[in-house]
Amino acid sequence: MMSKEVFEKYESNVRSYCRKWPVVMKSAKGSYYTDVDGKKYIDFFDGAGALNYGHNPDFIKERILEYIESDGITHSLDMFADSKEKFISYFEENYLIPKGLEYKIMFTGPTGTNSVEAALKLARKVTGRSEVWAFMGAFHGMSLGALSLTTERYARGGAGVKLTDVTHIPTPDYIDGFDTIKYMRTILDDDHSGIEKPAAIIIETVQAEGGINVFSVDFLKELRKLCDDYDIILIVDDVQVGCSRTGTFFSFERAGIVPDMVCLSKSIGGYGLPFALTLVKEEYDKFGPGEHNGTFRGSQISIVAAKAGLELNKLEKVDEKVKEKEQIVKDYLEKEIKPLLDENETYRGIGLIWGICFKDGKLSRAVLDKCFEKGLIIELAGRGDSVLKILPSLLIENETLLKGLNIIKESIIEVKNQ
Amino acid sequence: MMSKEVFEKYESNVRSYCRKWPVVMKSAKGSYYTDVDGKKYIDFFDGAGALNYGHNPDFIKERILEYIESDGITHSLDMFADSKEKFISYFEENYLIPKGLEYKIMFTGPTGTNSVEAALKLARKVTGRSEVWAFMGAFHGMSLGALSLTTERYARGGAGVKLTDVTHIPTPDYIDGFDTIKYMRTILDDDHSGIEKPAAIIIETVQAEGGINVFSVDFLKELRKLCDDYDIILIVDDVQVGCSRTGTFFSFERAGIVPDMVCLSKSIGGYGLPFALTLVKEEYDKFGPGEHNGTFRGSQISIVAAKAGLELNKLEKVDEKVKEKEQIVKDYLEKEIKPLLDENETYRGIGLIWGICFKDGKLSRAVLDKCFEKGLIIELAGRGDSVLKILPSLLIENETLLKGLNIIKESIIEVKNQ
Amino acid sequence: MMSKEVFEKYESNVRSYCRKWPVVMKSAKGSYYTDVDGKKYIDFFDGAGALNYGHNPDFIKERILEYIESDGITHSLDMFADSKEKFISYFEENYLIPKGLEYKIMFTGPTGTNSVEAALKLARKVTGRSEVWAFMGAFHGMSLGALSLTTERYARGGAGVKLTDVTHIPTPDYIDGFDTIKYMRTILDDDHSGIEKPAAIIIETVQAEGGINVFSVDFLKELRKLCDDYDIILIVDDVQVGCSRTGTFFSFERAGIVPDMVCLSKSIGGYGLPFALTLVKEEYDKFGPGEHNGTFRGSQISIVAAKAGLELNKLEKVDEKVKEKEQIVKDYLEKEIKPLLDENETYRGIGLIWGICFKDGKLSRAVLDKCFEKGLIIELAGRGDSVLKILPSLLIENETLLKGLNIIKESIIEVKNQ
Amino acid sequence: MMSKEVFEKYESNVRSYCRKWPVVMKSAKGSYYTDVDGKKYIDFFDGAGALNYGHNPDFIKERILEYIESDGITHSLDMFADSKEKFISYFEENYLIPKGLEYKIMFTGPTGTNSVEAALKLARKVTGRSEVWAFMGAFHGMSLGALSLTTERYARGGAGVKLTDVTHIPTPDYIDGFDTIKYMRTILDDDHSGIEKPAAIIIETVQAEGGINVFSVDFLKELRKLCDDYDIILIVDDVQVGCSRTGTFFSFERAGIVPDMVCLSKSIGGYGLPFALTLVKEEYDKFGPGEHNGTFRGSQISIVAAKAGLELNKLEKVDEKVKEKEQIVKDYLEKEIKPLLDENETYRGIGLIWGICFKDGKLSRAVLDKCFEKGLIIELAGRGDSVLKILPSLLIENETLLKGLNIIKESIIEVKNQ
Repeated sequence: MMSKEVFEKYESNVRSYCRKWPVVMKSAKGSYYTDVDGKKYIDFFDGAGALNYGHNPDFIKERILEYIESDGITHSLDMFADSKEKFISYFEENYLIPKGLEYKIMFTGPTGTNSVEAALKLARKVTGRSEVWAFMGAFHGMSLGALSLTTERYARGGAGVKLTDVTHIPTPDYIDGFDTIKYMRTILDDDHSGIEKPAAIIIETVQAEGGINVFSVDFLKELRKLCDDYDIILIVDDVQVGCSRTGTFFSFERAGIVPDMVCLSKSIGGYGLPFALTLVKEEYDKFGPGEHNGTFRGSQISIVAAKAGLELNKLEKVDEKVKEKEQIVKDYLEKEIKPLLDENETYRGIGLIWGICFKDGKLSRAVLDKCFEKGLIIELAGRGDSVLKILPSLLIENETLLKGLNIIKESIIEVKNQ
Repeated sequence: MMSKEVFEKYESNVRSYCRKWPVVMKSAKGSYYTDVDGKKYIDFFDGAGALNYGHNPDFIKERILEYIESDGITHSLDMFADSKEKFISYFEENYLIPKGLEYKIMFTGPTGTNSVEAALKLARKVTGRSEVWAFMGAFHGMSLGALSLTTERYARGGAGVKLTDVTHIPTPDYIDGFDTIKYMRTILDDDHSGIEKPAAIIIETVQAEGGINVFSVDFLKELRKLCDDYDIILIVDDVQVGCSRTGTFFSFERAGIVPDMVCLSKSIGGYGLPFALTLVKEEYDKFGPGEHNGTFRGSQISIVAAKAGLELNKLEKVDEKVKEKEQIVKDYLEKEIKPLLDENETYRGIGLIWGICFKDGKLSRAVLDKCFEKGLIIELAGRGDSVLKILPSLLIENETLLKGLNIIKESIIEVKNQ
Repeated sequence: MMSKEVFEKYESNVRSYCRKWPVVMKSAKGSYYTDVDGKKYIDFFDGAGALNYGHNPDFIKERILEYIESDGITHSLDMFADSKEKFISYFEENYLIPKGLEYKIMFTGPTGTNSVEAALKLARKVTGRSEVWAFMGAFHGMSLGALSLTTERYARGGAGVKLTDVTHIPTPDYIDGFDTIKYMRTILDDDHSGIEKPAAIIIETVQAEGGINVFSVDFLKELRKLCDDYDIILIVDDVQVGCSRTGTFFSFERAGIVPDMVCLSKSIGGYGLPFALTLVKEEYDKFGPGEHNGTFRGSQISIVAAKAGLELNKLEKVDEKVKEKEQIVKDYLEKEIKPLLDENETYRGIGLIWGICFKDGKLSRAVLDKCFEKGLIIELAGRGDSVLKILPSLLIENETLLKGLNIIKESIIEVKNQ
Repeated sequence: MMSKEVFEKYESNVRSYCRKWPVVMKSAKGSYYTDVDGKKYIDFFDGAGALNYGHNPDFIKERILEYIESDGITHSLDMFADSKEKFISYFEENYLIPKGLEYKIMFTGPTGTNSVEAALKLARKVTGRSEVWAFMGAFHGMSLGALSLTTERYARGGAGVKLTDVTHIPTPDYIDGFDTIKYMRTILDDDHSGIEKPAAIIIETVQAEGGINVFSVDFLKELRKLCDDYDIILIVDDVQVGCSRTGTFFSFERAGIVPDMVCLSKSIGGYGLPFALTLVKEEYDKFGPGEHNGTFRGSQISIVAAKAGLELNKLEKVDEKVKEKEQIVKDYLEKEIKPLLDENETYRGIGLIWGICFKDGKLSRAVLDKCFEKGLIIELAGRGDSVLKILPSLLIENETLLKGLNIIKESIIEVKNQ
């Protein structure tokens, strides 16, 4: 049987990305995939944000190999483990404490959705309120609690039950001039709004799946203030845009705010291994022992990789690199891509997450296909899938970055000229 | 700072197992943990069922190391990957097809709860019904959809929202003489039962967390028939008791039934790495592309380990070994433990999952503590945590098995004599 | 346009009883309806229990006429009204206090479903728990809160939303030997039942719509004890079987128990006018002012009729009459009807609510039709509508009662001989 | 015992209006109440809209007395009744058909909340969608389904369960410049709004309890169009502002729109007797027989009163009268009241429902108390109860109307000068 036939015959119909890029991948390094025929592809998809340091970075790889070879603990739930102690100390002492963030670390099941479920449960428990607010355009995961927050109609349609206990709030300028902060304050104060005071407000400071929507620093500051004023827990979902994606390790640092809880997954694992954390201010750390748990919350190989990832991040001065490369992308988009766009098309982003917003999903899809032909893996996002999402590794060489951008440019030209 | 202080200072209060066994583990092999001081512990806990082949089995370890060294794909969501193709082919051709099981394989997020969430969503979608039935005593996970199925009061209390869309059905003899099948048929037929026909019935053929409750072969056959008669989807949650734990690869094989969906996680990954699958009959494989997804649904190192685990299982003739060791445990419990028990105490189990049911949780907890003192890691389960759960690796040497059983025996004696 | 055409043309398809008895009624007195053509019908339907004293009893009629003529207040919400004061005093001093029932009287919207909604809200508010338990076979109303309690599948199907926050408990012997009290105690004690401790348990001491299912005195006593032991509010829904229907003013008097809340409607109004009350023990009387309200909670003509009805009940010694007539019905069913029934058919009841249980709904419907031909209005109830419900006025003359029973007998004979 | 003591001793704490006007009323006629001491009060409260033709109008009173005296049917559920046929014919032929409204008439339980519950269930059933949209400020009733629509925080707090299946939409200018129609269209079109397409949108064309908020004709037209464009059912809740309150029999006539369903209660009964209807376009008349029902849906005395009320309305040319009196109120508010108001205070209304909006609820409450001292019964509404609601009978004599308005004026002066 041919390779791809195996998938068609035996894998569930739910498979998706493989439909966009129908080649079988065999190995990967840095910003490149290599398929079974030896063909190479530049990766601007980055495992949906799970590979911020690129594929199989040697620094982390060596530590994993060493750990496995030594028969270090692989799996031990939340027993005390040497590797875990080292991760905790390192993360607290080199990241959290220097940044003034006094968080307890909760090891949840190893996925973003699990980190979000844990935060939701905890916020509801400590406040005694069940409602949570999320923003239109939000994506927070696919298990039932997180899915209630997620706004994508297609994803919600798969639930099969009513998604409850969440109110979706329009983002700034959702309709012209819409003032989100004022709206939230008004419905909280209004004894006839019909909307309950929430346990928490959850936000991605940059909506990734929602179409690369960057919340402004002012907005984030005002949101923090609103949460303070009304005693609402502020949860930042940094699953996709954390770990230096936007130019600081935590995406909220640019606003100078401190969320009450932070959801981390994807690149916190460093090497693309399943891993997730929920950071919680001590005053909200009120779960009883095991009140939220999960078999893989202590996957030690992920933990070893995670610590190595944090070390690598410092070693490589990733935040600085992101800022340099952000400028490269921004300039390229302004000079090379913007002239190709129609009036109602645009681009936007921050750090190393950028979107080119086409007028419809047909166009963006055609560009994606063309990019793939030319050897670039890149994904769509946003309303009607109309946004081409540029999400390279944070350690991508500038040359490869430009090569990828050039493929996009050429693809747009070819598609628009068809 | 001392090792343990790091956890107390920085880890969330939700940490649990470490409270039972307050030593820091450093490495593990086979059925033994070794702590940072070099002390060894026999493992009858088995990562809550994630380590059926023991810690770090060399057969799998070698394949993982080789794969990592070769820069095989680590993370690729559900893109086509060479390693994944190999797993799918192997699993279908060496397990599913020979057993007459025509399942499509759905790669869900890498945890049991995610596999259950996927099955729930799919069952609800294909039937258009929202209700699902689970059994009292059930444990199916901790994210919101799965938590609605889980019966443990403590776990449910953490939800912070109403858990809906599930009806819990009493198990056979829940109260004396209770006929579960007759009850389910009656409420389905009764136009005044107030209970909706469910999309699905989900069952662990042996309730593990619920206290090692083994459903009889007759019950399982009748349940399958009931589902056929009423057009209800039968989901077997084999997360903890699959992968040969009960003496056959799938736990339902002993009843000769074919579920419509099967949830697998924990030991399907072979090496304790996060991995989960949902197996689905083709007629129910109705998710659209990406309608359920997740970042880590294609964790290739887990997939490589999973394939190696399946190979190892065959190589070691694990099913046969389980049957031999089952006899050892059974005999030991009958001859050595039963005489120590009170009238209202008992033991029960199948394969290599057994429970010693004490009259209360205080007693079982005292036995656990004593076992730990004597170098045995073992966990509790069931009502009031009153069941001591014997869950060794399926490849445990007979000598170690007996050593562990002896520790239990001595611990009971000491505790009962206090 | 002919009379009936008006209804077919303009009235909603939801109309129901008129389909069973397609004649247009013009007047009514005592136990008789008279149609527009002057034909008379004996009434064994009794406005579904709203006309315990028969149609238009003169004693009440005179008081209503007098009140209306004097321009007494008709509508005043819950302002203080002279007529309401008189009703409250009379009810407390002549019914509640002498019976040792220390209830506060809550005037809800004027329907049974509203009385139930009020009790539900209050029980949930005072306990802080959302779950309520009702029994399989229960009927408590058709607005959303009450409908969640109601078990009839057809009625529930009309909701259009998930009916939540209710667990339905099987009645004694629901399946052979089922011990309802033991079951409830078990699930309350079991930390793995998956079922929440409820705010309240609601019961009709005789399920009317459910098919004339009489709960035993022992069961009611044990239920009261269970509620005491677990601090659960006991609500008796006496909407259909209160007001002396079972031989005592409140249906629970035969068990010597005191519910925490009592729902009254239907015959409490005396004359068939819309009226409802919720009686509440002082300790649970915790609604804030107007926290549950409704435009017609103070319909003074109903209140005047209600007081007159209470007086009439005493004057006519209705409880004694019911006991005499109960004997007549019982004897008749035993001697005249039982011999006509098959082995799997039976009869049951108490006071003046009795059911003849046919083996299927086709048969009961045929008997109903035949009864109507012969001038008797009688309704069905229960599973598959297979129970013929005998519900005459409590003041029916013995002669008319026997006439109606004879019609039933003849109808059964004719139907069974077809 | 003194009159009032009876209520304090025996009536539930939920009693509310009696706390504002602590006198015991004995009789009422036209626009006047008389208390037990013979003191008269002008009524600007109007039974919360249930007494549009004033207290005990002779035209209706005579018909009721005659009907009761003749032993006309009082209660017959939804059997065919002569009185009901006459009501249906009259309403269809003299109101609905001449206005071009082709509605089926559904007789629901006799309260506004029941009419709303029926409409909700039906809209959900026919569309297969569960979500319903209501507007911030809305009041639609207190039983669970209707309460989910109602926005008043205090009322919602009494539910004791999560209120689900409803999204509340901000009204025009809820925050400055908010465009409600554009917002609704945007979230319907947006595949990432997180808000489901509803079965129905329900609206009071003038929010009464919400504080006399008059939706503009343009808004109502655009709302009708939106519902047409998206295939959403439009329900007008005319419970409080129907029956000529706003100057046309149905409140939506001023906008020239035809809702798909209309909820009627309160003054449709003419005489303050419990009565409610749901009008439904034939295409949506899809309930099965009895799928929604209720004991008092065929209260014939209410039906007789309702028909008489419809006749009286025509006889008295009520719509014309309302327009005359509207001018009187408007002029008075402009000339006499406005000068007394602060900058951030205002008045608004239409027909004979007007609100004086004070800057806070303390002030409005003080004015209410002062009015009561001076012999005027008048109620509050709106945010923080800050709106004094002028709701006189539609047949009030101009002299009494002015007398009442003068009392308001004097009360404001006195309160503001304190």
